[in-house]
Amino acid sequence: MSNFIDNGSIIGIVGATGAVGIEVISCLYKRKFPVKQLRLFASERSAGKTIDSDYGKLTVEAFTVEESRKCDFVFLAVSGDFALEYAKQISSGNGPYVIDNSSAFRYMDDIPLVVPEINSHVLPGQKLIANPNCTTAIAAVVLYPLHVRYNIKTIIMSTYQASSGAGAEGMEELLRATEGKLNGQDVPNKVFAHPLPFNLIPHIDKFQDNGYTKEEMKVVWETRKIFGLTENDVKISCTCVRIPILRAHSEAITIETTNDVDINEIREMLSKAPGVRLVDDTSSNKYPMPLTSTQSFDVEVGRIRKSLVYGNKGIDLFVSGDQLLRGAALNAVLIAEKIKEL
Amino acid sequence: MSNFIDNGSIIGIVGATGAVGIEVISCLYKRKFPVKQLRLFASERSAGKTIDSDYGKLTVEAFTVEESRKCDFVFLAVSGDFALEYAKQISSGNGPYVIDNSSAFRYMDDIPLVVPEINSHVLPGQKLIANPNCTTAIAAVVLYPLHVRYNIKTIIMSTYQASSGAGAEGMEELLRATEGKLNGQDVPNKVFAHPLPFNLIPHIDKFQDNGYTKEEMKVVWETRKIFGLTENDVKISCTCVRIPILRAHSEAITIETTNDVDINEIREMLSKAPGVRLVDDTSSNKYPMPLTSTQSFDVEVGRIRKSLVYGNKGIDLFVSGDQLLRGAALNAVLIAEKIKEL
Repeated sequence: MSNFIDNGSIIGIVGATGAVGIEVISCLYKRKFPVKQLRLFASERSAGKTIDSDYGKLTVEAFTVEESRKCDFVFLAVSGDFALEYAKQISSGNGPYVIDNSSAFRYMDDIPLVVPEINSHVLPGQKLIANPNCTTAIAAVVLYPLHVRYNIKTIIMSTYQASSGAGAEGMEELLRATEGKLNGQDVPNKVFAHPLPFNLIPHIDKFQDNGYTKEEMKVVWETRKIFGLTENDVKISCTCVRIPILRAHSEAITIETTNDVDINEIREMLSKAPGVRLVDDTSSNKYPMPLTSTQSFDVEVGRIRKSLVYGNKGIDLFVSGDQLLRGAALNAVLIAEKIKEL
Repeated sequence: MSNFIDNGSIIGIVGATGAVGIEVISCLYKRKFPVKQLRLFASERSAGKTIDSDYGKLTVEAFTVEESRKCDFVFLAVSGDFALEYAKQISSGNGPYVIDNSSAFRYMDDIPLVVPEINSHVLPGQKLIANPNCTTAIAAVVLYPLHVRYNIKTIIMSTYQASSGAGAEGMEELLRATEGKLNGQDVPNKVFAHPLPFNLIPHIDKFQDNGYTKEEMKVVWETRKIFGLTENDVKISCTCVRIPILRAHSEAITIETTNDVDINEIREMLSKAPGVRLVDDTSSNKYPMPLTSTQSFDVEVGRIRKSLVYGNKGIDLFVSGDQLLRGAALNAVLIAEKIKEL
């Protein structure tokens, strides 16, 4: 328990036994976030469970609003329905800061949606903050510096998303079903709409009336909100695809810009951008991959090349980032860090 | 041997023991191509091997130009270097028609590059015909009817390519290395530049000076040639990515058109397009997937929706097609069928 700090904050994690919850604990530790006490909340069913963490063995408590309000920061790693019901109850009045990982509050005008490297200026005065969709956050840290310099008019994105987007159960199903497939046993899919091993599924979250999935629309809506842009400023389309990978999302992105691009300048800029690692040396077969971006705090970017469609006014690029880190837990912890600096 | 037909053609397959060669045999049979005799050629090393096929047990012969010239049609399922050295020697004078699966001749002005449903009109008078790159052929059968109706100005494509693109060895490496990964054993990658299990590799074929890979440029060059278009007619960019899948390539495609699109008309049109199967019922989770497109002669198309970037002048769509069939063997056999009709 020696990793706790007397003058640190009391941290609560709701949904502490899930894939994202576990990573929040790990991110707090690795980021040396000053933690005085760590309280892990989950459902009645998980209460009493112990978790081995960087902070020692911790016991899970059943969630109650009252207990969670005794914290300084509460991370919600739970469903949107749960968040809708409890987030404001937790944060109201002199309650703690609540950082919600669900999509419940992301599109509400009065709730900030934050990637700290981009728009932490919206944090002051806010108690409830929405953490963005994983796919959006991973692209955003790379695209924002490009937008500032070249003014992005159009984003066309295709994603290669990992099973972790469906939680620990998603990763487990992929592993067990792959094992089954290799042994000639049929392991039925429950988490995913179709079997995922040696397959892909161009369907994440619910279909909307316009034919796009909600996951695809999240990229559209959230990128605009985080960048502070409107539909008139930037056109965005996206195709989201689940592939048989464990926990890093990758994205092939084409952007059109207002200003002329310069590939060397872009590489230079991205090599210094916070939250980003430039991996772009094709002569030695270096480019972003889940194999190398997994467990990394930084989003990898590479395959940067002048667009064959937009000429000097656009580029193609490829990114890969850990879905559970930049796509969820890390981003949430970085938000808490920014709040402490206020 | 009863599947041979007295008045059929003598068929030679060079590289008969490879992944594509084996599929050519199967396609000839399934398409009921009139075959009088089937001669399987390979390297000295494979000579004498027997192959169990729909035509019974067949013995592999060592390739010689002289013997191959005794055929009516020769399918080359070999390297570009081999094709460059021998294709014209085989087809010259009164030699057989040669259909080459490599990229060796695809970009030569005097050699036709053919997807039979699109441009079989270029076949008359030609003895040596190039079969397109798999990624290109799979997209082309879907995009061409759209081009005829709406005039495509821009194509932006991201691919999800199977290990079969690297031949039988590629599929084998993916299976063995996945098995190893699950058992905690390290199976080193030889075929692919990096380990493929639970990973992806945004790198197929050699990098070009413009930062695109040759695989990506094949899509650009070949789509234009097959459609009979120039760089001024259609702008194309592409990102090619290897994913841990066995033998179907998928592609997320955004197109911009000159004419206004109509989604219902597109669905109607593609449901009747030759070589295409419309799989686009999101209400029942039906969309193109390797799981369903593998071993199918038709390319699946779905996720058809009006583009959020181009409005009425463009769509997003998703395709999946068997890499060894439309992407190679089937297309080659269909070319031979068209030649017989001349």
